[in-house]
Amino acid sequence: MMRRRGFLATPLAALPVAAAAGDAPDTRVYGTGDGIPHSPEEYSRLLVQLTKDGAVAADNYSLGGTVEKLETRMAQVLGKEAAVWLPTGTLANQLAVRILAGERRRVLVQAESHLFKDCGDCSQTLSGLHMVPLAPGKATFTMKDVQEADDDSRTGRVLTPIGALQIESPVRRQRGARFDLDEMKRVVAWARSNKVGLHLDGARLFLECGYTGRPVTEYTAMFDTVYVSSYKYFNAASGAILAGPKALLAGLYHTRRMFGGGLPHAWPFAAVSLHYVEGFAERFASAVKTSETVIQALQRDANFGVERIEAGTNIFRMRVFGVNAPVYQTRAAYAGLTLADPLGEWFNVQVNETWNRATAAEIVQRFVKGLG
Amino acid sequence: MMRRRGFLATPLAALPVAAAAGDAPDTRVYGTGDGIPHSPEEYSRLLVQLTKDGAVAADNYSLGGTVEKLETRMAQVLGKEAAVWLPTGTLANQLAVRILAGERRRVLVQAESHLFKDCGDCSQTLSGLHMVPLAPGKATFTMKDVQEADDDSRTGRVLTPIGALQIESPVRRQRGARFDLDEMKRVVAWARSNKVGLHLDGARLFLECGYTGRPVTEYTAMFDTVYVSSYKYFNAASGAILAGPKALLAGLYHTRRMFGGGLPHAWPFAAVSLHYVEGFAERFASAVKTSETVIQALQRDANFGVERIEAGTNIFRMRVFGVNAPVYQTRAAYAGLTLADPLGEWFNVQVNETWNRATAAEIVQRFVKGLG
Amino acid sequence: MMRRRGFLATPLAALPVAAAAGDAPDTRVYGTGDGIPHSPEEYSRLLVQLTKDGAVAADNYSLGGTVEKLETRMAQVLGKEAAVWLPTGTLANQLAVRILAGERRRVLVQAESHLFKDCGDCSQTLSGLHMVPLAPGKATFTMKDVQEADDDSRTGRVLTPIGALQIESPVRRQRGARFDLDEMKRVVAWARSNKVGLHLDGARLFLECGYTGRPVTEYTAMFDTVYVSSYKYFNAASGAILAGPKALLAGLYHTRRMFGGGLPHAWPFAAVSLHYVEGFAERFASAVKTSETVIQALQRDANFGVERIEAGTNIFRMRVFGVNAPVYQTRAAYAGLTLADPLGEWFNVQVNETWNRATAAEIVQRFVKGLG
Amino acid sequence: MMRRRGFLATPLAALPVAAAAGDAPDTRVYGTGDGIPHSPEEYSRLLVQLTKDGAVAADNYSLGGTVEKLETRMAQVLGKEAAVWLPTGTLANQLAVRILAGERRRVLVQAESHLFKDCGDCSQTLSGLHMVPLAPGKATFTMKDVQEADDDSRTGRVLTPIGALQIESPVRRQRGARFDLDEMKRVVAWARSNKVGLHLDGARLFLECGYTGRPVTEYTAMFDTVYVSSYKYFNAASGAILAGPKALLAGLYHTRRMFGGGLPHAWPFAAVSLHYVEGFAERFASAVKTSETVIQALQRDANFGVERIEAGTNIFRMRVFGVNAPVYQTRAAYAGLTLADPLGEWFNVQVNETWNRATAAEIVQRFVKGLG
Repeated sequence: MMRRRGFLATPLAALPVAAAAGDAPDTRVYGTGDGIPHSPEEYSRLLVQLTKDGAVAADNYSLGGTVEKLETRMAQVLGKEAAVWLPTGTLANQLAVRILAGERRRVLVQAESHLFKDCGDCSQTLSGLHMVPLAPGKATFTMKDVQEADDDSRTGRVLTPIGALQIESPVRRQRGARFDLDEMKRVVAWARSNKVGLHLDGARLFLECGYTGRPVTEYTAMFDTVYVSSYKYFNAASGAILAGPKALLAGLYHTRRMFGGGLPHAWPFAAVSLHYVEGFAERFASAVKTSETVIQALQRDANFGVERIEAGTNIFRMRVFGVNAPVYQTRAAYAGLTLADPLGEWFNVQVNETWNRATAAEIVQRFVKGLG
Repeated sequence: MMRRRGFLATPLAALPVAAAAGDAPDTRVYGTGDGIPHSPEEYSRLLVQLTKDGAVAADNYSLGGTVEKLETRMAQVLGKEAAVWLPTGTLANQLAVRILAGERRRVLVQAESHLFKDCGDCSQTLSGLHMVPLAPGKATFTMKDVQEADDDSRTGRVLTPIGALQIESPVRRQRGARFDLDEMKRVVAWARSNKVGLHLDGARLFLECGYTGRPVTEYTAMFDTVYVSSYKYFNAASGAILAGPKALLAGLYHTRRMFGGGLPHAWPFAAVSLHYVEGFAERFASAVKTSETVIQALQRDANFGVERIEAGTNIFRMRVFGVNAPVYQTRAAYAGLTLADPLGEWFNVQVNETWNRATAAEIVQRFVKGLG
Repeated sequence: MMRRRGFLATPLAALPVAAAAGDAPDTRVYGTGDGIPHSPEEYSRLLVQLTKDGAVAADNYSLGGTVEKLETRMAQVLGKEAAVWLPTGTLANQLAVRILAGERRRVLVQAESHLFKDCGDCSQTLSGLHMVPLAPGKATFTMKDVQEADDDSRTGRVLTPIGALQIESPVRRQRGARFDLDEMKRVVAWARSNKVGLHLDGARLFLECGYTGRPVTEYTAMFDTVYVSSYKYFNAASGAILAGPKALLAGLYHTRRMFGGGLPHAWPFAAVSLHYVEGFAERFASAVKTSETVIQALQRDANFGVERIEAGTNIFRMRVFGVNAPVYQTRAAYAGLTLADPLGEWFNVQVNETWNRATAAEIVQRFVKGLG
Repeated sequence: MMRRRGFLATPLAALPVAAAAGDAPDTRVYGTGDGIPHSPEEYSRLLVQLTKDGAVAADNYSLGGTVEKLETRMAQVLGKEAAVWLPTGTLANQLAVRILAGERRRVLVQAESHLFKDCGDCSQTLSGLHMVPLAPGKATFTMKDVQEADDDSRTGRVLTPIGALQIESPVRRQRGARFDLDEMKRVVAWARSNKVGLHLDGARLFLECGYTGRPVTEYTAMFDTVYVSSYKYFNAASGAILAGPKALLAGLYHTRRMFGGGLPHAWPFAAVSLHYVEGFAERFASAVKTSETVIQALQRDANFGVERIEAGTNIFRMRVFGVNAPVYQTRAAYAGLTLADPLGEWFNVQVNETWNRATAAEIVQRFVKGLG
């Protein structure tokens, strides 16, 4: 039911091209996932490297130590006063809209957002919020959608004011499409003038920045609170960061613990995330550049079909002609290119840091080798 | 505000007697904590050891892999059909009473229980339960207490039926005192005949068994659901196990995720816990035996004062005569015995697996060395 | 903000044609409201008439007496095992979906339903339900809408099962349009086979029956629970009836009181409602017949424009040509015909029992007199 | 299960001494209830009297008209900026603590309070509050109790701040005993300095004033919000008033409707309550004076045993010697004195306005006549 992320269910040794963990550098390129896959053994070795000589300080129920160091660093990176580590994005998003909404119980969200579709109705069930889904089937909702929802909240027999508005960008359920920036600015302006709290589900925000070239803070400055994933491309086994104003997040450590998210020790996650945050923007920009060269080459090659997502980010669709897709997948794997299982004839290919492990020419070669 | 557990905030190297991580075996005895303290470096090295050659399989959002292996093993150990891994005991206890209570909103608990006193009123705030605290200041509530609470639930103007009853044993807030077993049996019989759900907060249940000599399953068989900590003495950085009937726990994976407790990867916790579960009962029994010999020696020595907790478990109080307590603490640390900061003249001393690292005679000697 | 219903804010004496309360019968026809308007004085006189010689028995916190008599009678009329009096329809609808949904937290409703739009998000805020709005702008949702909502509940990362489905018919926000009966049957069949609870918001169900000619029980038999208003056309000052299976409603007296709806005495409402229930179907059928004759006459008269609502019930739109609408309203009032304030040139005209107070010919004459 | 209040289940005509409704004045004295019992017929006749000539204006969903008039009058009487009519005290108390608590989820209450014991755990179930019961078995809790609860809210592992404190006085479950005034002042001072919201459940506050001689406003001034019953001694069939600061109660009309308490018309309650409010203090003072004379006479008479409640209000216990209690009850009824069913040999006798219907001497005579 749920798809694999980041971690390898089987050790790399079981793959056609072995990753000699800890020895020669891994040169495999992954067309799956937003980050660098680590086997449990690789992850553990990384932890040893990061913790040796006491370089990592244990936290106490997710307070202090390296967890706090990550919080401080992420607040800085995101241009916010404060940041709080949370075990999952599901919790981060819910807590954000819960705090921002307060007594005003309606929260506007994209119908296709992770919070609305994939979090078990947590905000409704545990926080009693009325989540109002806008623009089904689309990445972006418009000021018109917001206006209608606002009218609805005023014209019923009982007032039901809007307390918060969440925007997710890029949108996972829309293959990484970005929320339209101009529309975002209009919506944000409306929210500001109506004192409606603003939350950005920026789980993959750093990926978006790799494609728009805009600094992360250009986005985060528009919102009261921002959630960024710690595991998708910062490669921690788990974790999320919620950043925002100090006063707003002041009691969040207590709320986190009440929700059962006050882990006795979170440093095995925080240390890895902190490690990969540094320099990520540059590394990912380089991977994007490589991938764009690869994509152009594939577009020129009649054996390949390529489809870009409009206003997309790190996902593109690809098919091959004349070769059965699962066969192609296997051959590509032998050539050092891991692809996800195809859906029919099409592969969803994801760009991530592993695209820095080879030159564009080498990666094109691996795509071609898969043809047989 | 919160006390340290398990993990060391500073690397062992900073301590008077260095633990040569990975080299010579650590011989330090800890009079603090329920388990074996690991520095982040030690924990990471242990992970490498456990994961090498693919011995650990990654989970996918806390499903499958080594997490599932731990769940299966713990269900077996606890004599239950099923078990579910959860990130914290706070979540485990709340979910248990939430499920057991259903539409009947009153839940009987010890006033001194962790769930009532230390979980931020999670069951009240998120699950809308009326938690009824019994027997303030005591480890055990009686059938009379239960009877009165039952009367209360029937004699108000509106019926407010009792849906669940939780017992914590041993009780942390009562210095590890055990819930009286005979009273437990009476209360359980009442609950059974009234179809009231039964949950055991057995966070430290394996410690209790080390003192009563009774098998874990003698306790767990009385209850519908049981929570056992994965980190207190099974030494994982975090984690909890909730065990019970398969049908009751069937939807719990979804509830866990809704609460934000569906960690993308939990194997860095599950693998360590699984490692320490095996053989724990025997190892802890041995540590208890050693500690009892030590305690007897201290009781015979006029330089020491010793107080046992009635119906207690792994905590005893100790003081020294003629030496300033903080000075004693420092000297003991040099002698290879770590003690928590004294409260006035008294030390709360905890017995755990590290008491197997030396003979009773050696440990007594370390206590004596502290005198100067 | 809220429109007047039933009761007159000013005594009838202030109106052009005085209602000699208690003396000559009132012959005024009301094109406003679903029932018979009573001034407080008229309502009180009716109460004296109903209560004299002990004919009304007081209830005790809405239990027993005439309240119970009304419940018994309404259960019978609606073809259900049991019925419970509730102070408002807002509470009746919420309690119905709350009980039917249980642990399955999604409830399908019309986007234009009273419960979704006009009840202050009560089900979301107080019962933590995720209310899923279907078919915005329409009276009827289709099996396709239901199918999509069902898919949504299964394809997210966390299961969020549908527990209940509510249909409102006729739909107030759609000018009294009826939910399509064939679609209703399909949706009901789906719900039955999926064990999804079924609730009918039949606030104005008896009005619908006056137009379809179908017995009330043809509708109610399809649903687990049914709410019918006690004040809209049964003319009580307040009150609602929720009917359904005995077992399902067994605890509702307690829930009612918990919600603050356990009025110490509700007989001043129940007695009036019980009075008007008897013979209502016949009286309303007669009023409908009269009104249809009137409408036909107006349609033939070039001075009037008439619009019927598709699949409508007791509301039609009317305008006059050559006369200013507010002027027409005043003249009609003098002629014994009360109309609501026009919206631009159009009047929404409602049919109710007062249309029995004159012949069709007389009523047509009053409409014509308004022209001047 | 529930005891009769105010309204007579059977018409007065069925009683030994007939009340000639509307003819000769009723001279019966009731030792039951806090107010004047009305049969449905009597209540209806009163409504006719109050509504004639348009003296009562209908409200629209509990807004405006006579309901607003009552709210304005009660705000004035209670010395508060604003007041809101609510259908029941259960709702009034819950909404008060819900608003005052806000995000701070603990609310201190007497263990014997109506809100804690008799409202179906409404605040816990619907508002997710942790209601902390103080001083079981007593009318008054002390600053020490509050201090302990405050410590508890700060010393758990997670902060759980106290948001509100409710005092009920007099206390129904303690036979009308008053909360100690000095303790009240201390507790109020503590709450003020800790910014904890203060609510007074003054359901029977006007009865208390009849015994302490203090003005109502001396009590209400100490609290943010005050609930006063509209039916217990103001004789409405139902209803409650919640008074407090305008800003705090501003959104309450919406909340009331969300809870299902927005009755389409509440004037049949409001009009009666408004009628009895005027002059109540004087009339009740007179009844108390009469009753005190009666009690002294009974105390001097060896045939009677009398017990006063310490710090009590309008309830005293009485027994007779040498006559079987049920026999005495019947004879007293014939003599014009209605008593509640005895509990063993004792009667709980209540003082209310009906004690003004005869002189003290006449009432004593009726007590004596009951002896046979």
